[in-house]
Amino acid sequence: MVNIGILGCGRIGQVHARSVALVEGARVAAVADAFADAANALAVKTGAKVMTAEQMIASPDIDAVIIGTPTDTHFDLIQASAKAGKAIFCEKPVDMSAARIRDCITTVDTAGVPFLTGFNRRFDAGFAAIRARICDGEIGDVELVTILSRDPSPPPVSYIQSSGGLFRDMMIHDFDMARFLLGEDIVRVYATGSALVDPAIGEAGDVDTAVAVLTTASGKICQISNSRRASYGYDQRVEVHGARGLLRADNMRKDNVEFAGETGFRTAPAQHFFLERYAGAYLAEMAHFVACLQSGQAPSPGIRDGLAAQLIADAAAQSLATGAAVDLL
Amino acid sequence: MVNIGILGCGRIGQVHARSVALVEGARVAAVADAFADAANALAVKTGAKVMTAEQMIASPDIDAVIIGTPTDTHFDLIQASAKAGKAIFCEKPVDMSAARIRDCITTVDTAGVPFLTGFNRRFDAGFAAIRARICDGEIGDVELVTILSRDPSPPPVSYIQSSGGLFRDMMIHDFDMARFLLGEDIVRVYATGSALVDPAIGEAGDVDTAVAVLTTASGKICQISNSRRASYGYDQRVEVHGARGLLRADNMRKDNVEFAGETGFRTAPAQHFFLERYAGAYLAEMAHFVACLQSGQAPSPGIRDGLAAQLIADAAAQSLATGAAVDLL
Amino acid sequence: MVNIGILGCGRIGQVHARSVALVEGARVAAVADAFADAANALAVKTGAKVMTAEQMIASPDIDAVIIGTPTDTHFDLIQASAKAGKAIFCEKPVDMSAARIRDCITTVDTAGVPFLTGFNRRFDAGFAAIRARICDGEIGDVELVTILSRDPSPPPVSYIQSSGGLFRDMMIHDFDMARFLLGEDIVRVYATGSALVDPAIGEAGDVDTAVAVLTTASGKICQISNSRRASYGYDQRVEVHGARGLLRADNMRKDNVEFAGETGFRTAPAQHFFLERYAGAYLAEMAHFVACLQSGQAPSPGIRDGLAAQLIADAAAQSLATGAAVDLL
Amino acid sequence: MVNIGILGCGRIGQVHARSVALVEGARVAAVADAFADAANALAVKTGAKVMTAEQMIASPDIDAVIIGTPTDTHFDLIQASAKAGKAIFCEKPVDMSAARIRDCITTVDTAGVPFLTGFNRRFDAGFAAIRARICDGEIGDVELVTILSRDPSPPPVSYIQSSGGLFRDMMIHDFDMARFLLGEDIVRVYATGSALVDPAIGEAGDVDTAVAVLTTASGKICQISNSRRASYGYDQRVEVHGARGLLRADNMRKDNVEFAGETGFRTAPAQHFFLERYAGAYLAEMAHFVACLQSGQAPSPGIRDGLAAQLIADAAAQSLATGAAVDLL
Repeated sequence: MVNIGILGCGRIGQVHARSVALVEGARVAAVADAFADAANALAVKTGAKVMTAEQMIASPDIDAVIIGTPTDTHFDLIQASAKAGKAIFCEKPVDMSAARIRDCITTVDTAGVPFLTGFNRRFDAGFAAIRARICDGEIGDVELVTILSRDPSPPPVSYIQSSGGLFRDMMIHDFDMARFLLGEDIVRVYATGSALVDPAIGEAGDVDTAVAVLTTASGKICQISNSRRASYGYDQRVEVHGARGLLRADNMRKDNVEFAGETGFRTAPAQHFFLERYAGAYLAEMAHFVACLQSGQAPSPGIRDGLAAQLIADAAAQSLATGAAVDLL
Repeated sequence: MVNIGILGCGRIGQVHARSVALVEGARVAAVADAFADAANALAVKTGAKVMTAEQMIASPDIDAVIIGTPTDTHFDLIQASAKAGKAIFCEKPVDMSAARIRDCITTVDTAGVPFLTGFNRRFDAGFAAIRARICDGEIGDVELVTILSRDPSPPPVSYIQSSGGLFRDMMIHDFDMARFLLGEDIVRVYATGSALVDPAIGEAGDVDTAVAVLTTASGKICQISNSRRASYGYDQRVEVHGARGLLRADNMRKDNVEFAGETGFRTAPAQHFFLERYAGAYLAEMAHFVACLQSGQAPSPGIRDGLAAQLIADAAAQSLATGAAVDLL
Repeated sequence: MVNIGILGCGRIGQVHARSVALVEGARVAAVADAFADAANALAVKTGAKVMTAEQMIASPDIDAVIIGTPTDTHFDLIQASAKAGKAIFCEKPVDMSAARIRDCITTVDTAGVPFLTGFNRRFDAGFAAIRARICDGEIGDVELVTILSRDPSPPPVSYIQSSGGLFRDMMIHDFDMARFLLGEDIVRVYATGSALVDPAIGEAGDVDTAVAVLTTASGKICQISNSRRASYGYDQRVEVHGARGLLRADNMRKDNVEFAGETGFRTAPAQHFFLERYAGAYLAEMAHFVACLQSGQAPSPGIRDGLAAQLIADAAAQSLATGAAVDLL
Repeated sequence: MVNIGILGCGRIGQVHARSVALVEGARVAAVADAFADAANALAVKTGAKVMTAEQMIASPDIDAVIIGTPTDTHFDLIQASAKAGKAIFCEKPVDMSAARIRDCITTVDTAGVPFLTGFNRRFDAGFAAIRARICDGEIGDVELVTILSRDPSPPPVSYIQSSGGLFRDMMIHDFDMARFLLGEDIVRVYATGSALVDPAIGEAGDVDTAVAVLTTASGKICQISNSRRASYGYDQRVEVHGARGLLRADNMRKDNVEFAGETGFRTAPAQHFFLERYAGAYLAEMAHFVACLQSGQAPSPGIRDGLAAQLIADAAAQSLATGAAVDLL
């Protein structure tokens, strides 16, 4: 039985707690949160003990921690948990600073602890199937990847201001997906964007509508587009064009009902947002993490994947600022 | 060059004239209509001569006639044309009376002239592809056929009164399609129906909503449903369930545009009615007729197919009236 | 907290146990099975006590029982549970004999206990949405209902022999769905069928390919077709044609990935069978049952719905045997 | 009656001849081609006279010319036809040199003759409907446009060498489509590409896989991707993301048949190439040209649209060569 401690009992911590409950061979053994009420509520639901983060990390009864706290606390929790020998499941982004992620890599490597970076979309049934089918050679060499991600509505400007900007906050998921599907490192990034959804986002120095073009050393190309608003729900699509065919995953709709009437044929909107759209992905991600702890296999995506996506995001932000493509070493 | 005479210059006669213009190796040589204006207009458009029906049938310059006149004139025109040695393309139904169709079969057989019954739907690209793929064995033995046909809106009651009833006027197309897809004769018919769309149709002794179940000697089953009204356009669907798979043809929509918005995803309505939906089928039907005349192959569906569908329609009408299934010999 | 006892710890009992675990306000308090191992395994997983059926029904700590035992045991368990004042969730069919279901109705009514008949498909998100939208008037009066159900592969002949036949074992779900969507009682049934999938099924006196036509007093019509085999997975479709539009629910596929290559565009097969296809329906069904116990509302579908479907199935079997339509009182 | 002369009787000239035959109020009056056989064959089919280009341009009986000759002859034919007062329908590209297109603009403006640039895709039913619905405000302000175009297979390298390169030969259609859908001028272009399909294309100095990002003054963004090969047919898709919704046009498939079997659900490949995919667009384009000549309205897209697309293609080629985004004045 893998004993898991949850650091951060907010929305995402609760998602992970439900996943643990459905995965064989694991249980939520401890929970911690700066707000006592949040920790207590989750403890009641799961049967876990309430601890402080320090107690949890120090406890010999805890095998693994899930870090679902605010991003600026990740660094210290990773350092402490790794040094204490805990397996780590850390929500993305690992950190806003590439330098500090490199520090974490050193610590994690030294400690030799398993580390999963929470790029949950890799575990979506559709995207995972596409990756597996690429690896099976179904479409031959990958040539062009197209990723479209749009949120149903923009976050408040207060969130934008501390988010690190669209490329580090939102498109970072797509940068990881691009690496996952291309199977190669990115060597050049061009990005541009505008504040078309909400002028206040532009005044805050960010964009809400953006695209990026990523190129690999062998010339494979990935196009990404993001918008902070989609009237029709959470838009999450991927397509991969290869030498022998194309694989694509369309949106998941709320139900499978079609209406036909005078105005035509109408189906349900896309599932509303990430908790609904990626419910299955969160569960599969946890199952993978637990299975890795049981088998000794390294979890994937690991901490270096977290760094790689962050470096692409930094390059994209620089490209937006300068208008020029940016080369990654 | 096949010289074709068109008997009846109304809507369907004009459709066939356009088809002839697009088929290599044939031309509209003569047109005839009880209304001089209709014949003259089509003659101007096609360069054909205006004749009376009698002149056309007697003319040695005419190789084939297309009979697109009212149903009650078909019998005499078939008799005369066959005796004059003309190839015949006759709109469905051949006649409302099975006995009289049998008379026509005798005449046509004696004369040895090619005869095509205008069940245009057999030439629809989708339905024809399904039939061809069944014959290629793609789905193994056919077991269950489902046919759904719905008109966009009911005809006037005056039309209903002289139509022979829904089974002979509308579902007859589906009876022919059932035979085409099942590849076996029908031995039993059960039908029922209601006047749900327009009570006046019920008062006229007909139904506007109806279903039929057809069974073959080997136990294959076909379900058909008809409605005289579909708010979403002309609904024409077929599906065939076989031992190794299923083939289905969905509706054709007005265009391929999808809108996504707050109420979901919306595509265009179905193509509005038969002239639009079956434009390609009418052209392919004419190409088949001309190709048969050129090659000496017998056109299909032939006059016996017209009789077979009529007998099923008669049995369906009897089943509706009695509430019992009707056996066909 | 609603304390639930599970009678029968086989496949369906385990499904219900998982559902209870995910529904707030309820728990599996006791389990019973003729095979001790089955009961013990489920008890370990849920924390429930192992009891005999008699102990469970006699226990004052149990509020409700879920009857998931073989059909021929339902009658006695319903009688005993109702007399003991337990709320009852009984798998379909309630019983193979309409007379005995009527006996159960008397007992349940006398006892005044809540009773849910396990027609789980009513709780499928798509079918439930269609029903709700019909009730909201979105398509006006219902006129034609089409239900297509096909199993991925036939059960063993030994199962067929004790199943009561296709109409009572398989199409009974569709009869209930027809009543659910038509919103009216059925007054006439015509059914026919063949053994096309497996001759041994025919030798056992049953059919594996069947259709039925149901008619209501006001003339609404429902067509149903069943096959015991579908190479493409579990085929479960419904469509409702009304005066102002059509609502349909298509199959659920294994994932949302589309491949495009030389042979065209290909998506995943349908979800394989009922445990996968109706996972969400089983959960919603349990949530409804628990919510009814908490609120005092009567569960639906109730025991009379179980009887109504059985009577239609009996009529369909009679129609198949006689070749005639059968009127229901 | 509009009398039309066709300059160039190759594949595209024959397409336009068929379109003229289906448009009311116009006829093919003359044809010209450097190869006498080509001109004679088209003359027989249409009833037109065979002329030299000089005779046609000098003839007072010709109202309009369709220029379907090789690109390097366009300049002289435009100059002569405009000076002779002919209305002009010129295939794209108008010329490979922006300077020479500017010369043509001067001549056409001076002569005051109607001029249509043959960007046929604007007349595709789906794309035209999207444009019309944008203009109607259905999706609010346009923010992001995504255009995916892929050819079924690459042209021979000999063609590539004289084509002007992918951006001027293939993506130019998409540049025009971008302007059509964005409704604004492009101010910045970033493009990149690789030779992934055929190394010989790379050796010839061109790319076969390419993307471009176009930006307008107000910050609207368009992403384009091209490949010279798509195993699944001619891939032509457009989507427009606006403030209140999204409009997209998917590929047209060869037929509407779906197969379901063990490997899932399969539909037909996309229509194979441009003559099939854009058959309706070519007809609508000709109908527009003739209607403009009859009404006196200026055809659209005009010669300035031809120049604008060429300038974007030049900028894209420069961006590919330099790795930097290029600003358009």
